[in-house]
Amino acid sequence: MTTHYHWEEITVLETAIDDMNPEFHPYVIEKLLAGGALDAYLQPIIMKKGRPGVLLTVLARPRDVDHLLAVIFTETSTLGVRIRTEKRACLARSFLTAQTEYGPVRVKVAYTGDKNTPVRYSPEYEDCRARALERGVPLREVFRAALQAAQKTEKTPQ
Amino acid sequence: MTTHYHWEEITVLETAIDDMNPEFHPYVIEKLLAGGALDAYLQPIIMKKGRPGVLLTVLARPRDVDHLLAVIFTETSTLGVRIRTEKRACLARSFLTAQTEYGPVRVKVAYTGDKNTPVRYSPEYEDCRARALERGVPLREVFRAALQAAQKTEKTPQ
Amino acid sequence: MTTHYHWEEITVLETAIDDMNPEFHPYVIEKLLAGGALDAYLQPIIMKKGRPGVLLTVLARPRDVDHLLAVIFTETSTLGVRIRTEKRACLARSFLTAQTEYGPVRVKVAYTGDKNTPVRYSPEYEDCRARALERGVPLREVFRAALQAAQKTEKTPQ
Amino acid sequence: MTTHYHWEEITVLETAIDDMNPEFHPYVIEKLLAGGALDAYLQPIIMKKGRPGVLLTVLARPRDVDHLLAVIFTETSTLGVRIRTEKRACLARSFLTAQTEYGPVRVKVAYTGDKNTPVRYSPEYEDCRARALERGVPLREVFRAALQAAQKTEKTPQ
Amino acid sequence: MTTHYHWEEITVLETAIDDMNPEFHPYVIEKLLAGGALDAYLQPIIMKKGRPGVLLTVLARPRDVDHLLAVIFTETSTLGVRIRTEKRACLARSFLTAQTEYGPVRVKVAYTGDKNTPVRYSPEYEDCRARALERGVPLREVFRAALQAAQKTEKTPQ
Amino acid sequence: MTTHYHWEEITVLETAIDDMNPEFHPYVIEKLLAGGALDAYLQPIIMKKGRPGVLLTVLARPRDVDHLLAVIFTETSTLGVRIRTEKRACLARSFLTAQTEYGPVRVKVAYTGDKNTPVRYSPEYEDCRARALERGVPLREVFRAALQAAQKTEKTPQ
Repeated sequence: MTTHYHWEEITVLETAIDDMNPEFHPYVIEKLLAGGALDAYLQPIIMKKGRPGVLLTVLARPRDVDHLLAVIFTETSTLGVRIRTEKRACLARSFLTAQTEYGPVRVKVAYTGDKNTPVRYSPEYEDCRARALERGVPLREVFRAALQAAQKTEKTPQ
Repeated sequence: MTTHYHWEEITVLETAIDDMNPEFHPYVIEKLLAGGALDAYLQPIIMKKGRPGVLLTVLARPRDVDHLLAVIFTETSTLGVRIRTEKRACLARSFLTAQTEYGPVRVKVAYTGDKNTPVRYSPEYEDCRARALERGVPLREVFRAALQAAQKTEKTPQ
Repeated sequence: MTTHYHWEEITVLETAIDDMNPEFHPYVIEKLLAGGALDAYLQPIIMKKGRPGVLLTVLARPRDVDHLLAVIFTETSTLGVRIRTEKRACLARSFLTAQTEYGPVRVKVAYTGDKNTPVRYSPEYEDCRARALERGVPLREVFRAALQAAQKTEKTPQ
Repeated sequence: MTTHYHWEEITVLETAIDDMNPEFHPYVIEKLLAGGALDAYLQPIIMKKGRPGVLLTVLARPRDVDHLLAVIFTETSTLGVRIRTEKRACLARSFLTAQTEYGPVRVKVAYTGDKNTPVRYSPEYEDCRARALERGVPLREVFRAALQAAQKTEKTPQ
Repeated sequence: MTTHYHWEEITVLETAIDDMNPEFHPYVIEKLLAGGALDAYLQPIIMKKGRPGVLLTVLARPRDVDHLLAVIFTETSTLGVRIRTEKRACLARSFLTAQTEYGPVRVKVAYTGDKNTPVRYSPEYEDCRARALERGVPLREVFRAALQAAQKTEKTPQ
Repeated sequence: MTTHYHWEEITVLETAIDDMNPEFHPYVIEKLLAGGALDAYLQPIIMKKGRPGVLLTVLARPRDVDHLLAVIFTETSTLGVRIRTEKRACLARSFLTAQTEYGPVRVKVAYTGDKNTPVRYSPEYEDCRARALERGVPLREVFRAALQAAQKTEKTPQ
């Protein structure tokens, strides 16, 4: 079994926050993604004295660290942000547009390199959402149609 | 198998909070327990717009509801508190004092009524903590000693 | 201490979901709120066989239950939805518009009835977000300014 | 939009546990399901003094409550179990056996009654797992094949 | 206080997943453990757009990384897996078989090196579960008996 | 935008725990903080076989690692603790004492270096709690008063 992936260097920023209005968290994530973060997510944690805090994790390219640190220090209540460098194994991927009965939907195609399952398809959420609202059909019906159409579409790796 | 329990009526208060400094939560729980709440706990939840909120649940005797509602409205940011009535099955229980090599520890005894396991023992956390700090031994060692001593102590149901 | 609230009847719908693409959850909540739900939130749970599922809770007016049930059955993978009726204690509230140095921000005012803290202020998130993006200032700075301006504004209960 | 469901009465048992070895939880759930519980799940909670507890929720037919209470009191450390009665809206459902390239897989079929999405298919996890291990293919590939085969199979409501 | 542990090098693999049927997670963990992972666990997280995702963490020996990466890419929906190297402090440990009134139970023995608590005992879950089901006694009763018997058993460090 | 922070080296200790009485966790955290830990928090996780475990994370100065490892091995049930080194970006900070209508409250001042938001204020929880209990006013009212008084106080960076 051969899996086709390449390696990249990635910086992980983390900080635990226990004294900020939770309404601010989605805004912070929005600003981080707009500022170049590759991903950002929150984990509920239990901090000292039984406080229900949140651990913020941000994945970033090394060159964006300064800017993202400034966003965190400006928009959150934290006094310290931890940083580490990791490697990330990334699958080769490409996009295709599936023509469904509800309209076009972009589909991400990932190449695992495993002979038994040459490709994996992930319909783009925003496209599916738009088609579902336009046509008044369930979101999962649009996903299903996009997956089915993608499997019949010819594709080439990026 | 016969289990020995009695029923009581209990009121459950719940409210989801997404816009309060999380540092306040342990204080709210402290005030609720001081105000007669039987128990109170927090659950991390995901609220609208992806906010990491907290669901506060309070268990109370029906007669304490007005006072506990006032605590919640005064100390939290919520605008609405839900209330329902439930029944609670409660095991018969009593206390004994176990004499351990680290000093005395109160132990809660519960009577399940199951012939194979006539009683269950729960050493009191605060007593174990006090003995562990006094003697410089691990907390779990004090628990272990208290359980062992309790099993050798005669006891009668409440 | 007198707290000023009124009671209303509320229906709670709940269902545990362990076999649905998690990308669909925010869409389901969006559809439920658009369909009249008063609130909707998600709790991470551990279901049988160790599955990381999600408990969906929806708060609704009794008259909206049929429609919201149809949304849940159409958009999620669930086969059963539980329903119960609860009472909800609701604080009297009103809105004011605070004039801040960053522009106008609507602020929710809640009347707890406690003499020591006659009112509580909650700046509207969407207004604060809009002002923060327009002016390039931190979100919490807009909240702070809105709270400060609200405290100087005259107001009357709804 | 008409959704086809019927109502049944259901009992919900709940208890918050903060002093039991977490290894016991899956065993408790196994015993509860073997004892007739319709479902059982765990939620991480923050209990008093900052303890990371677990809320156990059990769904049951009213006639099984006595037995399930005895299981909880015998197998867990709890001293009290709350009970409430709810209604549950249940979709009509049936089973079919999908013939896939990896072997037979049972598929649950749910009838939402919505004209746009007459049925929903859920391949049975245990069948998919067995086929995946037998054939050395990814689990999701078996799910995909079962869904595709189910959509081509004729079926009749239960 | 001297604690007796040795150091080993360990690789940590992590990936956040927001678009996979949660039913697959326990299967992924089963495959990872069967493929040599030292441990694997899931954390509920809140991903962008408010999605309730899951962070998968896998601990592995460096030599198993290629194989475990292939399992993750084949069985999950992820497109990228992060990797870092850490050190792990491991206590010396051994096994003994405790003879209880319910039958034999293996018990893990850990040597903390602390003079006040020379050893720690952990009864093996699967053995306790088997004895509990055979004899129809509570699981915790078998644990209790195994701990008690272990403390009377002579043992030697590995 | 310039943010004023300095870098320090920090050690992170982590261990996943699935077989310890959850009552012990707050005690472990108390002992770790008393032993020099900079911070410590808990995350609910799902471990193998569906166990609701807890991931303990401890932040420490490199010189305290030996002692903190001994605390973890002595007080918890773990057999292995992972360690990694990270960098931490720390904001410049100082303290001031705000004179409020409820009495003095220490306030932490953080210097983000952003011209638009030169400082951030965090009232000390324990001071606010003490004033709230003394005066019988809501905790958030004391926070509000402390923030307002802090903004009028002259201050100099540390």
